[in-house]
Amino acid sequence: MRVDLNADMGEGFGPWRMGDDAALLGVVTSANIACGMHAGDANVMAGVMRAAAAQDVGIGAHPGFADLQGFGRRRLKLSAEELANLVAYQLGAAQGMARLAGTRVRHLKLHGALSNMAAEDAAIARACYGAAVALDPGIILVAQAATAMEAVAREIGATWVGEIFADRAYNDDGTLLDRSRPGAVLHDPAEVGRRMEEMIRARAIITASGRQLPARIDTICVHGDSPAAVTMAATLRAHLETAGITVTRF
Amino acid sequence: MRVDLNADMGEGFGPWRMGDDAALLGVVTSANIACGMHAGDANVMAGVMRAAAAQDVGIGAHPGFADLQGFGRRRLKLSAEELANLVAYQLGAAQGMARLAGTRVRHLKLHGALSNMAAEDAAIARACYGAAVALDPGIILVAQAATAMEAVAREIGATWVGEIFADRAYNDDGTLLDRSRPGAVLHDPAEVGRRMEEMIRARAIITASGRQLPARIDTICVHGDSPAAVTMAATLRAHLETAGITVTRF
Amino acid sequence: MRVDLNADMGEGFGPWRMGDDAALLGVVTSANIACGMHAGDANVMAGVMRAAAAQDVGIGAHPGFADLQGFGRRRLKLSAEELANLVAYQLGAAQGMARLAGTRVRHLKLHGALSNMAAEDAAIARACYGAAVALDPGIILVAQAATAMEAVAREIGATWVGEIFADRAYNDDGTLLDRSRPGAVLHDPAEVGRRMEEMIRARAIITASGRQLPARIDTICVHGDSPAAVTMAATLRAHLETAGITVTRF
Amino acid sequence: MRVDLNADMGEGFGPWRMGDDAALLGVVTSANIACGMHAGDANVMAGVMRAAAAQDVGIGAHPGFADLQGFGRRRLKLSAEELANLVAYQLGAAQGMARLAGTRVRHLKLHGALSNMAAEDAAIARACYGAAVALDPGIILVAQAATAMEAVAREIGATWVGEIFADRAYNDDGTLLDRSRPGAVLHDPAEVGRRMEEMIRARAIITASGRQLPARIDTICVHGDSPAAVTMAATLRAHLETAGITVTRF
Repeated sequence: MRVDLNADMGEGFGPWRMGDDAALLGVVTSANIACGMHAGDANVMAGVMRAAAAQDVGIGAHPGFADLQGFGRRRLKLSAEELANLVAYQLGAAQGMARLAGTRVRHLKLHGALSNMAAEDAAIARACYGAAVALDPGIILVAQAATAMEAVAREIGATWVGEIFADRAYNDDGTLLDRSRPGAVLHDPAEVGRRMEEMIRARAIITASGRQLPARIDTICVHGDSPAAVTMAATLRAHLETAGITVTRF
Repeated sequence: MRVDLNADMGEGFGPWRMGDDAALLGVVTSANIACGMHAGDANVMAGVMRAAAAQDVGIGAHPGFADLQGFGRRRLKLSAEELANLVAYQLGAAQGMARLAGTRVRHLKLHGALSNMAAEDAAIARACYGAAVALDPGIILVAQAATAMEAVAREIGATWVGEIFADRAYNDDGTLLDRSRPGAVLHDPAEVGRRMEEMIRARAIITASGRQLPARIDTICVHGDSPAAVTMAATLRAHLETAGITVTRF
Repeated sequence: MRVDLNADMGEGFGPWRMGDDAALLGVVTSANIACGMHAGDANVMAGVMRAAAAQDVGIGAHPGFADLQGFGRRRLKLSAEELANLVAYQLGAAQGMARLAGTRVRHLKLHGALSNMAAEDAAIARACYGAAVALDPGIILVAQAATAMEAVAREIGATWVGEIFADRAYNDDGTLLDRSRPGAVLHDPAEVGRRMEEMIRARAIITASGRQLPARIDTICVHGDSPAAVTMAATLRAHLETAGITVTRF
Repeated sequence: MRVDLNADMGEGFGPWRMGDDAALLGVVTSANIACGMHAGDANVMAGVMRAAAAQDVGIGAHPGFADLQGFGRRRLKLSAEELANLVAYQLGAAQGMARLAGTRVRHLKLHGALSNMAAEDAAIARACYGAAVALDPGIILVAQAATAMEAVAREIGATWVGEIFADRAYNDDGTLLDRSRPGAVLHDPAEVGRRMEEMIRARAIITASGRQLPARIDTICVHGDSPAAVTMAATLRAHLETAGITVTRF
């Protein structure tokens, strides 16, 4: 049994930093790197790509809406063509930065509101994933398991991996409990470790009500935006390895 | 005898447009397409790339400083590493947009203040051109003839073409007369046609004082930011063709 | 009988211009000036404010969402506090620019998606108008007649004027026919003139179905983004004046 | 004897924060608040203004170049008119945000490269200060003591205060030692305290070579971008108060 750990990185801009990328790179096996539109300018990208390559962490493009102030977390209604352009621009930029750093982009994960919208709406997932595959037919799409993202990745015959969230509770339909609901976000690293192990062994998302939704679990999303988050990620990794689950790049 | 005509395009952003790209694409053979930092968002880029590809006009990346308000015309002091990142990001984005449009980026030309600085300072040209070649060793660099750009393109063994300006007068050292000086900018299409023909035949820049500076003249830069500019470009093309000089992509 | 004509102006940014402000200033009596977030940087604002003041055209702040690429036409979900901050920032900036130009901001009109949202949702109108009045209790709010904007302007006891659109057809509930519907946008200047005169005399919006919705009609919104639009505005003004309706600042 | 302590605040943007404004507000007596162009969006401004007002810390506008990525630290060559517009826009926005927060802007301090350029070049100081005074004739200008800023503030008859830096060494001409030089930045809080006390008592800047340059010292600039910086500021304040120098708003 094996699983990948992924985290968003390179979320600074200009003089600002967010999260502790250096610490996270010692824990995760895949890095989703912001591409300049919601965070991450060219200098930030160059730095985190070089660091990820040096630690053999897999490099991914992490495109989001062009909304620095909202950090890509505000929904914007774009046409399918605009979505494709948005993703192609950012993936292309990430590929360029990766080549400059002597490495390559091997996966793509959508960010923030763009991700939420693509999880709900196949047309949005199709526009985004279609653009990604047009740029690189071999790119690995990180799709939220059991959502429209997964359906579209299958539909277009793309290479994809299924993702679950380490610290979020699930509804019975596979969507995430709204953050405002009690229990929606898990804070206890030990509980997170047990829960992830259970899902991986079950090959299923286990919802808040205890239901099992069969799902491909290739990668677990962890966070690094606070010292507690980095600790949780490290604790999760240790738990999985102790349980005999290999933590390795997808 | 042959020469290419190049022009800057895709210089809109969001709701704004600049120049008449559609008309210019009927005149020039190479398009330098803004890459999103000084002008040209992903939607603008997609539109002009598709149009250029449809008319068999060569597609180039046209990176500039990240300064929308200043349109990349204001000088910014960046480190060599920042310059390389700036160019790699924009060239990568342009390559991504080109792949989405089913075409490719075959040349790179620096924009505005970045271009002026690279023409004067080999270290700046080296940082920019080094990044471009790291992304695509076969990319054709459009270098202002007889400047630091040309020297660096030779030094790094890149593929390059020499460029002159249709409507600008030259100093005896090969630099451009400052725009504020009388005669610095030519407005008479007939004069521009005669002058360009003369330089191409002489294989030299002919300065305002009449001196000849031997130079490789592969491409002539024309403009499209006003109806008069498009007319001048079309008149120049007609003049060259009448004179037996083939206007074709480098 | 009297009416004001208002138009959006100062919608350039950096090197880009939109519409013919100079021509419009000869036609309208109120200018809604973009405040730097969806269009209009400080230099553009300074230019149009000086020109408006010179022609005795009333100066208004025209705040919109902070979305240059989308020109403030894309809906963003903000909290009431964020909306108030957004409006206060832009109105304050406009007041500053007006003082520098030796004039003052006497009205405020919301732009684009922010305006559409405030017309539909009193909570949004309340957040925006509350901020405006906090900065200047005497500011004149330009409210779309018979919408939540008008209701909120009355509710908070603000000074306000009712606005109708010269070239848009109305639904029976006072909202605008969606632009995608046939007849939603009027293109015939003569028809626009007759229709506006009819509404002013009826003191009512006349809907596409012929129904009359009593409304305070203090100002008519015209456009200047194309030569045809400027012509339509001038034709409307001439029609109204010929019909004995005084066109003057509210 | 009395002195004010000032610090830059509100230097976040969107999701990003910089420095510990809450801690600093317990130490300083004047806050220079970024105005949205190099840092500080409307939401950040609103938060820090309310907090400053609640702690009776004096509120200042801190305009800088419109360069988020460069944090206003990169020099841009602007015309006098563009500089005036830049300052008027930001000061106006700050005044608007202050009114919304129920308080007012009582001082203005230039930021980063704009400040450095105004310290060196009276024409730049004149453009900036002229705009500030046009908006508010009573505004207090924070001028680096013994620079072009001070000269221009005197020349235009503005209300101004003289500022020195807590942690920077001075050249004999009153300019700051370049940061790259050894000893240019002081790190020992005890030394900073002794040095500031000495300068205040001498009513003079004491340069690195020991020379005294008579100067009006109304306010000392401290920093809050690191926990060490906040500690240094608090230590300085304690030292001054122990030495019998009242720390109070100018």
